[in-house]
Amino acid sequence: MNYNDKFSEDTGSFFRSPVREIFKKVDLNAIYSFAGGYPSADTFPLEEIRAAMSEVIDKYGGKAFQYGATQGVPELREAVARRCGTEPSMVQITSSSQQGIDVCTRILVDPGDVVLTSEPSYLGALQSFRSYRADVRGISHSSDIDVYRRNVEEAAMSAVREGKRVKFLYIIPDFQNPSGETLTLEERKMLIRIAEDHDFLIVEDAPYRELRYSGETVESMYSLAPDRVIHLGSFSKIFAPGFRLGWILAHPEILDQIYVCKQSLDLCPPVFDQYVAAEFLDSGRLDANLRKTIDLYREKRDLMLSLLEETMPGNVVWTRPEGGLFLFLTMPEGFDAVKFYDKALSAGVAYVAGEFFYPQRNVKNTMRLNFSFMDRERMNAGIRLLAALLKEELCAE
Amino acid sequence: MNYNDKFSEDTGSFFRSPVREIFKKVDLNAIYSFAGGYPSADTFPLEEIRAAMSEVIDKYGGKAFQYGATQGVPELREAVARRCGTEPSMVQITSSSQQGIDVCTRILVDPGDVVLTSEPSYLGALQSFRSYRADVRGISHSSDIDVYRRNVEEAAMSAVREGKRVKFLYIIPDFQNPSGETLTLEERKMLIRIAEDHDFLIVEDAPYRELRYSGETVESMYSLAPDRVIHLGSFSKIFAPGFRLGWILAHPEILDQIYVCKQSLDLCPPVFDQYVAAEFLDSGRLDANLRKTIDLYREKRDLMLSLLEETMPGNVVWTRPEGGLFLFLTMPEGFDAVKFYDKALSAGVAYVAGEFFYPQRNVKNTMRLNFSFMDRERMNAGIRLLAALLKEELCAE
Repeated sequence: MNYNDKFSEDTGSFFRSPVREIFKKVDLNAIYSFAGGYPSADTFPLEEIRAAMSEVIDKYGGKAFQYGATQGVPELREAVARRCGTEPSMVQITSSSQQGIDVCTRILVDPGDVVLTSEPSYLGALQSFRSYRADVRGISHSSDIDVYRRNVEEAAMSAVREGKRVKFLYIIPDFQNPSGETLTLEERKMLIRIAEDHDFLIVEDAPYRELRYSGETVESMYSLAPDRVIHLGSFSKIFAPGFRLGWILAHPEILDQIYVCKQSLDLCPPVFDQYVAAEFLDSGRLDANLRKTIDLYREKRDLMLSLLEETMPGNVVWTRPEGGLFLFLTMPEGFDAVKFYDKALSAGVAYVAGEFFYPQRNVKNTMRLNFSFMDRERMNAGIRLLAALLKEELCAE
Repeated sequence: MNYNDKFSEDTGSFFRSPVREIFKKVDLNAIYSFAGGYPSADTFPLEEIRAAMSEVIDKYGGKAFQYGATQGVPELREAVARRCGTEPSMVQITSSSQQGIDVCTRILVDPGDVVLTSEPSYLGALQSFRSYRADVRGISHSSDIDVYRRNVEEAAMSAVREGKRVKFLYIIPDFQNPSGETLTLEERKMLIRIAEDHDFLIVEDAPYRELRYSGETVESMYSLAPDRVIHLGSFSKIFAPGFRLGWILAHPEILDQIYVCKQSLDLCPPVFDQYVAAEFLDSGRLDANLRKTIDLYREKRDLMLSLLEETMPGNVVWTRPEGGLFLFLTMPEGFDAVKFYDKALSAGVAYVAGEFFYPQRNVKNTMRLNFSFMDRERMNAGIRLLAALLKEELCAE
């Protein structure tokens, strides 16, 4: 039977996550893995979760296992609203913040519409944009704000010149995936101004926002322009990804389309998991655990930075993130991180080649390293191994 | 700010579930509700769930709260495969069987493609098909199989004559929502033959399949034609809907597209919930609880049938389902169940007007009644009230 003629046109633009493909092939515990965006399992407060689950069963009984409201259970919407300084009516709970990205793309993008994104950018977002046949255009960041502004304006204007509509700018302002970089307040305001000038929306993806280890919190783009910005939050990094819970803050007209769409996507988010998250938030357990997580990750980030300093060849540079889970390495021109990957993996160390994070896959000499997942001993051994391999490679060339 | 020019074309075809809108407006416990498709909360084995959750935490530790495989955790795929008599590689776990419907439509349907469906049909499926701008065509069932065959063939051929592609037939063969009817083996084979002749797929939605109270199980369409049929299963009615878990069985080529699509939809199904479901299946607790559920629902179905018999006006007829959660009432021509609804609700009884289940909304004189949700006392009072209102209405006309 021929299935190829049965599939929709969208499927022609699906592409597989190279990260998830890596995980299918290797046992993460058998290698040194800097590849995933996994939190450390040490940060999951198992006994407190067990207790909260029992409390939820006592408190809600059968209701915790019944169908729930499409927008999310009221208790969690209220807890998220309090945390974000907004009203529950502005909150849609999602079955993961990946779903937040997907549903925004679904309600906003027709094939050929332009989505602007930082370059590099989050792979799962690129997958989603492409799957709806968006015309994804990357924007290079520059520490010179005038250059950065010109890059953004030029991307918006060239789309318009081609008769295309820019639907939104997708951006991770805090501790970006994969670069680890954070936008300044001035940069955020500049982006909002351009979005206003060209009348497109901004999707602010903020899964790492609360994982800050140094420096000062910068206002969210949503708080600067709540009518223009759709804010995506996630419980995956501040609580646990196994619950698959996130949230969207947006203008009621946008939220209403998301709500109707979500009815046909999956009716409602997981109900029991939502009550557990609400219990965790309301009781202060989430914040107490988050403080410990931040302390742990700060140590890990510092350790990785000092290991890189100590071991890497002089022609390798990297970002110094103030939070999040990742930093980004740049090797000299000519280095190909995809080709090098097989060598690294057979030696026992995994990363994600930076090229996958570029919409055009045109930058070959970068890699993303995660510092949250492995413990200190394994991080130490893994970075030393990676550095030794890189030295060998970069000297041989 | 004008949002209307920002939305995708798909949003123009979104429509709200009237069922979910009902639930936003009324407190289900303050009225007699025959409206939802809710299981009885009495069927959720709270103490066994509490114990299983604790066992999952002991057995898997942090892994239960980490990201998981996109296809679902191996333990649940294996348990579902055993239950369905297939291989784990044929199983995709979904974040609800509604997601199963949605993802199948996504990978198969382009705007304008024809989806055939029974008439009436499940509302959530109609929402999903429409949201992708499918051309949804209803097929009337007839107890005369030759008439039924002609109806299906005519629907397929008229689509072809119009130069359209039929992508799939969506069907709930067991205890259909909303009609409660079950297809005979002969009818299932007939449908598969027509699908083969016209080379379209069949999406078999089977959330109620295991809720049989009388009569003999009929082979699933998937087991009759595994290459042609995509089978959707659900934990919502055999375990608890609050977990939002379902599964898809399909040919590997179809499953592969679903897998890639699911990466960008939500990365993976809820992990902890999957382990709990696997524990419940493997330990036999799910089946033990299901037997009790079936006994309870059989009683409720029997009670509702006898109440209808006793109370309804002579010109009202209804289906006699062998399982599932629903039966379907037909009033005389001229009756309008949507108009009547306000009167019923202000008297304190809710149902869903059958018109919403018809793709063309052209049948006005039917309603769907659920018999799983309310307890016996409330069902008794609710049916008596509804019958009294109907008598008043039908005599006044």
